Formats: sequence, C-alpha cells, structure tokens
Amino acid sequence: MDEFAIIAEILKPLSGGDENALGFKDDIAILPKFTKPTIYTTDTIVEGTHFLKSDAPEDVGYKLIMANVSDIIAKGAEPRAGFLNLCLPHSMDANAVKALANGIAEAKALHGDFPILGGDTTVTNGNMVLSLSLIGETIGEKPILRSGAQIGDDIYVTGVIGDAKIGLDCLFGKLDPDNYPKCIEHYKRPKVQPLSAAKLIAKYANAAMDISDGLLGDLQKMIMALGAELDLEKIPYSKEADQYAICLKSMFELISFGDDYQILFTSAPINEDAIMQSGLQITKIGKIIQSGGLKLFSNGKEIDFERNNLSFSHKIGDF
Amino acid sequence: MDEFAIIAEILKPLSGGDENALGFKDDIAILPKFTKPTIYTTDTIVEGTHFLKSDAPEDVGYKLIMANVSDIIAKGAEPRAGFLNLCLPHSMDANAVKALANGIAEAKALHGDFPILGGDTTVTNGNMVLSLSLIGETIGEKPILRSGAQIGDDIYVTGVIGDAKIGLDCLFGKLDPDNYPKCIEHYKRPKVQPLSAAKLIAKYANAAMDISDGLLGDLQKMIMALGAELDLEKIPYSKEADQYAICLKSMFELISFGDDYQILFTSAPINEDAIMQSGLQITKIGKIIQSGGLKLFSNGKEIDFERNNLSFSHKIGDF
Repeated sequence: MDEFAIIAEILKPLSGGDENALGFKDDIAILPKFTKPTIYTTDTIVEGTHFLKSDAPEDVGYKLIMANVSDIIAKGAEPRAGFLNLCLPHSMDANAVKALANGIAEAKALHGDFPILGGDTTVTNGNMVLSLSLIGETIGEKPILRSGAQIGDDIYVTGVIGDAKIGLDCLFGKLDPDNYPKCIEHYKRPKVQPLSAAKLIAKYANAAMDISDGLLGDLQKMIMALGAELDLEKIPYSKEADQYAICLKSMFELISFGDDYQILFTSAPINEDAIMQSGLQITKIGKIIQSGGLKLFSNGKEIDFERNNLSFSHKIGDF
Repeated sequence: MDEFAIIAEILKPLSGGDENALGFKDDIAILPKFTKPTIYTTDTIVEGTHFLKSDAPEDVGYKLIMANVSDIIAKGAEPRAGFLNLCLPHSMDANAVKALANGIAEAKALHGDFPILGGDTTVTNGNMVLSLSLIGETIGEKPILRSGAQIGDDIYVTGVIGDAKIGLDCLFGKLDPDNYPKCIEHYKRPKVQPLSAAKLIAKYANAAMDISDGLLGDLQKMIMALGAELDLEKIPYSKEADQYAICLKSMFELISFGDDYQILFTSAPINEDAIMQSGLQITKIGKIIQSGGLKLFSNGKEIDFERNNLSFSHKIGDF
C-alpha cells in the first residue's frame, strides 16, 4: 500500500467533498472563513504511550478524534475543520489503515461531521504516531479559557471520572476485565460531551478545560494563583468506578490519572440552577477561593496530603 | 526533563510573546484574523525516514521549518503562524531539545519570524516524529495552486536541483564527502526561496508547487491531463551536482529524488522578461502542451524511458 493510494482511496473521503481540501491533490488546503473567532488545538497519540499496540485501529482513530474534539467543546466552541498527520509503521496493511479511517469517520460524525481538509502521511520503522489538528469556531464572542476562574465561582465537572484508569488497568491484567466492561469501553471509545455542552460552557463558564491529565492536576493548572476547595465525596464516578474507589488511595488514583474527556469548569453561583437543569450530567464539586492552592475535603475535614502519603502529577503536553 | 519544563522553558520563547499563544498555558491557541485568504500546510519528518538519527538536532529543527515554509512560499503566500507536534524519544535530553528549538528559531527568523502559537509534546520509546503545521496568508487574492497550469505556459524552476540527493549519498558513505561539501550543507540546512519569491509567484504564476518528491514526479502531478516538454539540458545544477550529472542515469537520480525545496511553476510566455529580471535564480526548463504526459528531450531528441531503462517515482505524502 503506497502513500498515494492511502490518500486517494482511504483518506480523501474524510474531506466529505469539501472544496477547501482541494481534492487532497495539493500540498495545502484553503482555510475557510468563519463568522465567530476561531481556536486551534492539536493532540498527538503515540503507540506505546497513549494507546497499546494491541488496540484495534478503529478504536485508535476514534480516540484521536475524541482527544481533540474534547478540547474544542471544553472551550465553548464547535469543531469545524481537521488536519491529520499519520505516521504509520511500514508493516501496517491497507485494511488496518481503512479501519483507522473508519474510526476517525465514526467519531467525527458524532460531533458535527467536520471535514478533514488536509494533512500528511509518512512511514516509520518505529511506533505509530498520529496527530489531529482541529479548528473550532466559538459559540459566543470568545473562547472560554483555562485562566478565567473568579473568586467565589462554583467548580463543576461533566460526566464521570476515572473509568479510563480502570479500563487500562484491566487491559494490563491488573484488574479483572469481567468486573469493569464499561470502563474498558471508555478506555477504547471515550465518550466526549455533545455540542450542547459547548453551548452551556459558552453561556455560563468563566473558566473551562478538558480533563486530560487528571482532575487534580488539571484543576491546579486552572486555579493558578487562586485557591480551590474540592469536596472529594462529590466527585462523580460510574457504578464500576464507585466499586473501585473504596479508599482514599484508590480514589486518588482515579482523580489523578486523566483521559477522562470530561469538562472541568467554573461559573458564578447565580448560574447554578440553569446549569443543573441543562439535562447534561453535571456535578458541582467545589468552589474557587482567594488563595492557598488546592484544598481537598473529605467528610468535612481537610485532607493532609503528606500525612496520607498522597500526591498527584502535574504532567502537561498540550499547549 | 519533563514536558512541563520543555514547554515552559524551551518552547514558549518560540511564540515570540504573541498573545494568541495564551502563554502556552491553555490547550488551545486563538487563530489570528488575516486580511487576505489563508492556507494551511503540514509536513511531518520522521527519524530514519526523513532524517538520520545521527543528524544534529539543530539541523532537524531547521529542516522541519523549511519543509513547511517551502510549501507556503510556493503558493504565493507568506508564513504567519505555526503549530508544533513534537514526539520525542524518552532518551532525548534537555540540551538536545534546546538545540532542536534553536534550529526552529533560526529557520523561522529567515522567513518573517512567524510565531509558534501552540502544539503538543509527547514522548515515545520509538523514533522521533516532528510535525509543523503552518498557516500562510496569500499575497494576491488567492493562493497559486498546483492545478492551474495553462496550455502554452512556460515551465520554470527556482534555484538548483539535486544537491540533497548527493548530500545524503555522502552521509551514507556512497560518495566522498570531500567532493560535495555544499551538497551536504544543503541536505542538512536546505535553503528555501525568500519571501520575494512568493511575491513573484503571486504575480506571475498560473500553477506552482514546492519540489519535495523529485522534479519529474512533481511535474507529472502538476500537469495532470495536460502534457509537458522538458529540456533536460536546461535543468539547473550546482557546480558540485554538475560534476555528478555526467550521464543520463545519474541526472535522472537527481531529478527524481526530491528534498530540493525549490519551486516549480508555470507562467504565460508574456511574463518571461519580468520573471528573468526578478533577481532570483530562475530557469526556464520547458513548456506545457495540450496532452501526452511528460516528454523529456535531450539535445533536441525525445528520450525513450523504457529503452534507457529510466523511471521515476510518484511518491506523495502531503495533502
């Protein structure tokens, strides 16, 4: 399978016939003009780092799209145009590339079916490396940034936290897969909030971000010089994750891991009723305070990180 | 060296303080608004495929920028904003990442010093994979596409062809490096046409493209259903490549290899004087005809590809 055939036969349909893609026959694409401000995000997923060699190519393609769509939705914006960089192992056959493209098509169909307007394919004798770059158009007059939190804001999270960590542990043989089928499904095919969540963020959020590096680490990035009080009992888990989070230590594993593809956001208290009545699964988990960094409470008592031998990472990759 | 330190200390200066980069502290960047139409290109370079493990990181960073700038200039546009995807081996140390960033900074300073507005860093236990995505703003009212050639157009090429092939052969030990120092330099630090070439393309070209996959293969992509007559004696070489291109077979190696980072373009005959007086090194090498594909002439006689056992590839990756 040569690169020409991959582009002409397998990737070109992903443009949906959009004329700005120039039929995938030029080295460039034309950027469409949009009415509202536009934002740009890009996420790379690497075999052996972000997905397993044994993962099905459909699932890998699906995850590549969701990792980026999640960043756009979390900013109160809608995905409009994507660009792919596919660095594929020599050994990958045409059927595997088709499966990858099918996963890409399936995932983007769930979020407005934006066109892929261009990209690049290369081959490697190393690991597969896939990037998507995604342009989003804001719903409001500007994107909702990570840095906008205000003192007194409530802190919210969409959906549930921790399923990806449990799913991956099942695939690594650390947990019994029979006990956590939905977590495995979330690891393979992460659910990303729908476009209606982007509208909610655009309307009510002061600060927002996709949780990709763990709830605790991402919240710490969000608050910067401010402080936050987080109520550990309020953090939402799936039924399967709830079984797992039976002690503080295992709970910490879930809220530090990442790959949740949920939105962490803050909003003024006046918006609480509107947010809770949105029809989306949203949980209020804490409050922004003036200073003092991140404080965690359990049953009304502040947790002493050191004494409980707890820590969480501050990993970051996307910028 | 963690990703956080790489982004905050080494990559952030590449934004040049542009506020749309949001200080590399968000998962998104804001896309600036431009007056003229904008185009998008992205090229990935892979260790072991597009560069050697032994290449200096400065040179690799430099090449990453040039591979993409070349695509923008060739369309009659100027580079305006870049985004980096860096997939770095675990074993790479901070000094090597700094050297990579220095090469990036040096190359973009030569072409308008556009800001890097965002990106992604990941780690791999495999080969280094680097992508740049680059947004360009057209000089005229539209980009000059690969597909615009008209019957009767003259075919031009900027600069010289073939140095990269010779340079790589030297590094592989196939040729004596002492005989080809400038070719090795071109392989390591490709010269890309200046912004004044983009202005010339915008003003005079009907079709234009960056030669990245070999003069012959790229010209064939350009002419599509049309034909072209190419005069092999007119193809411009450096003094070093001229020594090498002593027979038809070695000449074919040079015009089939790629990585020339030169511009292939067509223009109506009426523009010839203006083009030749531009002050840039430009050579007229042939003519677009109505049909019949690519015809090569040497000393006035058409070359029989099969009889001379000649062929060239049609590789493609960028779309």
